[in-house]
Amino acid sequence: MLKLREINVTIRKSKKEDMVQVYKLIKALAEFEKLEHTMKITAQDLENDGFNTDNPAFTCLVAEISDGHIMGYAIYYTSYSTWLGRSIFLEDLYVQPAYRRSGIGRELFLAVAKIAHESPSKRMDFHVLSWNPAIDFYKSLGAMDMTITEKWHHFRMDQDCLNKLFSKK
Amino acid sequence: MLKLREINVTIRKSKKEDMVQVYKLIKALAEFEKLEHTMKITAQDLENDGFNTDNPAFTCLVAEISDGHIMGYAIYYTSYSTWLGRSIFLEDLYVQPAYRRSGIGRELFLAVAKIAHESPSKRMDFHVLSWNPAIDFYKSLGAMDMTITEKWHHFRMDQDCLNKLFSKK
Repeated sequence: MLKLREINVTIRKSKKEDMVQVYKLIKALAEFEKLEHTMKITAQDLENDGFNTDNPAFTCLVAEISDGHIMGYAIYYTSYSTWLGRSIFLEDLYVQPAYRRSGIGRELFLAVAKIAHESPSKRMDFHVLSWNPAIDFYKSLGAMDMTITEKWHHFRMDQDCLNKLFSKK
Repeated sequence: MLKLREINVTIRKSKKEDMVQVYKLIKALAEFEKLEHTMKITAQDLENDGFNTDNPAFTCLVAEISDGHIMGYAIYYTSYSTWLGRSIFLEDLYVQPAYRRSGIGRELFLAVAKIAHESPSKRMDFHVLSWNPAIDFYKSLGAMDMTITEKWHHFRMDQDCLNKLFSKK
């Protein structure tokens, strides 16, 4: 638990009750990424997948101000590297526009990075859109763009691709 | 379970006892990708992470010929999309050079894609090196290169990055 004194923010692990607020922020991030049409999840899904289960699919950290309002979050899950073992994949990091440049994004990122640093693989991966200005921030913290350095491309079979693939057979 | 009659191959879920053979193939894939120096895992780690646990970190499918020799494998894990929910990430797909162009790679890929098709998110993601000739094969099955179409870049904080980040603080 971390206190950012200047604006009185607490970074903490989320509770099930936070998912309604986190859901709204996920939606805001999808809108920022101009990809909101792909979002099908509900707040109830987040509660089920992260809390109402013996095997949570993700962990969520939230940045909360003193009135209980959540203005930023980070969601990560455990991935697996066949070279290094269990690893951390940072799926989302988001801070509401009005609270940016206050250090909250940095503290959320560092909180997840610290968990990665303590994990067996000591590694954290994430995807960023090439036009997202946050790239400079990630690079300033030492992150490597593996698409540039090693030529890794991210491929996907989405629902349409899979439907086509299996309707052909 | 699938039989490829021409060369008498079975595609099946792996058992713990397969991990020694799978480990050798993972090493061969790392060598193909010219990244074997980054591989730190052992066959015992694979047994522990995939089998000796209540919460397996990955699932492995293997392609086996009639003498029990495994000449190909696919490893995937459950990722999480904050837009779609639990999803499939195909971490590795490998077939020994002598057995390529026989349809084994295709059957391994289809077996994982089918699991993705039946998952809540109906989505499968994976990373491919831009110079890997298998890209044409993936595209022929309908896979989208998200690095090209949506400008997603893959970022990483590895052990060195994380060590530097936390030694500074």
